[in-house]
Amino acid sequence: VKSRRWILALDVGGTNMTAGLFHDEVGEPLVLRSRSTPVAEGVGAVVARGVALLDEVRKEAEGAGVPPDRIVGAGIGVPGAVDPTRGIVSRAPNLAWNDVPIRDRFQEALGLPVVVDNDANCAALGEWWAGAGRGSRLMVGATLGTGIGGGIVREGRVLRGVTGSAGEIGHMTIQLDGRSCSCGNRGCLEAYASGTAIAQRAREALEEQRIRHREGGDPNRAGRPDDVDSPLPDHVGSTLSEDAGSILDSMVDGRWEELTAAHVSRAAGAGDELARAIMAETARYLGAGLAGLVNVLNPDRIVLTGGVALAGDLLLEPVRRHVRRQAFPSAAEACVIALARSPEGAGVRGAALTFRREVLEGHR
Amino acid sequence: VKSRRWILALDVGGTNMTAGLFHDEVGEPLVLRSRSTPVAEGVGAVVARGVALLDEVRKEAEGAGVPPDRIVGAGIGVPGAVDPTRGIVSRAPNLAWNDVPIRDRFQEALGLPVVVDNDANCAALGEWWAGAGRGSRLMVGATLGTGIGGGIVREGRVLRGVTGSAGEIGHMTIQLDGRSCSCGNRGCLEAYASGTAIAQRAREALEEQRIRHREGGDPNRAGRPDDVDSPLPDHVGSTLSEDAGSILDSMVDGRWEELTAAHVSRAAGAGDELARAIMAETARYLGAGLAGLVNVLNPDRIVLTGGVALAGDLLLEPVRRHVRRQAFPSAAEACVIALARSPEGAGVRGAALTFRREVLEGHR
Repeated sequence: VKSRRWILALDVGGTNMTAGLFHDEVGEPLVLRSRSTPVAEGVGAVVARGVALLDEVRKEAEGAGVPPDRIVGAGIGVPGAVDPTRGIVSRAPNLAWNDVPIRDRFQEALGLPVVVDNDANCAALGEWWAGAGRGSRLMVGATLGTGIGGGIVREGRVLRGVTGSAGEIGHMTIQLDGRSCSCGNRGCLEAYASGTAIAQRAREALEEQRIRHREGGDPNRAGRPDDVDSPLPDHVGSTLSEDAGSILDSMVDGRWEELTAAHVSRAAGAGDELARAIMAETARYLGAGLAGLVNVLNPDRIVLTGGVALAGDLLLEPVRRHVRRQAFPSAAEACVIALARSPEGAGVRGAALTFRREVLEGHR
Repeated sequence: VKSRRWILALDVGGTNMTAGLFHDEVGEPLVLRSRSTPVAEGVGAVVARGVALLDEVRKEAEGAGVPPDRIVGAGIGVPGAVDPTRGIVSRAPNLAWNDVPIRDRFQEALGLPVVVDNDANCAALGEWWAGAGRGSRLMVGATLGTGIGGGIVREGRVLRGVTGSAGEIGHMTIQLDGRSCSCGNRGCLEAYASGTAIAQRAREALEEQRIRHREGGDPNRAGRPDDVDSPLPDHVGSTLSEDAGSILDSMVDGRWEELTAAHVSRAAGAGDELARAIMAETARYLGAGLAGLVNVLNPDRIVLTGGVALAGDLLLEPVRRHVRRQAFPSAAEACVIALARSPEGAGVRGAALTFRREVLEGHR
């Protein structure tokens, strides 16, 4: 065991953070710990809790017989735009961070070398290392969460682009002048198929449904605001039965503002017609975006990760169908689309491998 | 001169074919010849004319002092889906070819090793070698012609994907349920911004203009078919003056079916308002597609090539603006968008470099 090298890893999410310890050649954590992210308390509090969590992991590892001097450093994944060369998080909206020199802060606190990368790059690399991306030559990891991120892994290395920001697959236009996106544009994939967008479209569909019933099923659906895309295409909206949405509605007890994508996928699983229509549309949006990536990159694997991917086959099967129908046949055939093995644990694993790649192997 | 190696190259287009001879380390042709492509006469005739053209080039090179035994092979670019490993053109709609073993046919006829690749990959590589892509680390070549193709060049090598079809940037969805595309889908970038699409949108705009005038400028534009996207957004269409389109119209003497993208860009250059609006919309479509690529790939260069790129600054400047406005700021800043140095000569040059890469250097 003496000759082994161990790597600490931390995945900082907008809600939770997860820390782990990995042997540099094994994609499974020896120790794994999770805690909430104190976003509202600011950068200092998040760093402090991250360090505390990593220290707990170190102690537990020591107890398990890992010599402290064999822990060689830490990899950290952050949901935002990261400059991996300088170790700076230039922008992380979900953490309200701007230009935070996160690498140096963790390095000082831990007394170890640290590498920082975008969380979706980490998640993609984590699934490549020991998940649904294993063995792939060119993989796209699509992280479907609050937003949509991505990572492109070629022969086991993240394709970073020239300033480290490659893989932002959530910000391809799929609908010109479409829904407003967090990035300031309209019509991005993220504005249609992220968890946030799914919840938003569900709320709009419930609202439409209510208006339609109040007006006795008027097929012209008066009252629908003109400046908002319909959450459902007309032919779907008008064929929904009266109790469509009722399971979804009851899940949040009528407090639609509390609806999340998880409610929508659970309601769809329970047979709610409106929720099923929302998920079917989500698959169509994702299918359009992923088919474009299949045509542009010709990957052999696409791995869906993040909270939305927990919807499972309900999402996976129709996404596969849409991609097969839309992408070039030879490229679509060559590409396996799969769910992440650990939709929420790939990030911390990939953060460890990122450290190995960048520091132990010296690759960029 | 004895130690030099020379490479034949052929760019087979849907209209013309160009042959050249290149020194393996110089991106400028020693000899260059062009001839029309006899598409209607079938594969045999196209191959025969290609071989004849390459033989002429060989003879002229001999006359110029190139020893015949220093000509080591040929690179060939074809507009279609190519399997470079097997040298087969699986599908080339503009040539009406399906599963043509083009490498073997040229190898037999020339008595030299031959390498085949997609023409847009060749054009991208050609601009990287000795054009507007020179020195770039990650470049996207966007070939805007009859269709829209592309090539991704990373550190001087084409990124092919797992079955050789990467770079098909024309088939990203930019408008769900939008215009019909040659690939069988709707809403692809190609369906909006290829030369074919520009001409088509111009014809539709002239038609709308005619209807509008016939009806005394009815702002509701009755008579516009519902199942077709408007070629211009409402706010543009309704502000066009009465003589908008007249320059364009006169260029083809009222025979709108003969309109090409070249007419549209010439008319726009001459001040025709309708043509300017069409080109402005084209830039917007391209901007949306390219901004997505900037976010996904984070390249340092995008080079516009193909016939549509001959529109020059009329297209380039607004495309740059749209990308800057839509892509992530750091990624947009890092990416120079440029016109090809030789919008129609990059392909033959890149075909020569493809041969060098694949055969002389043994890279895939």
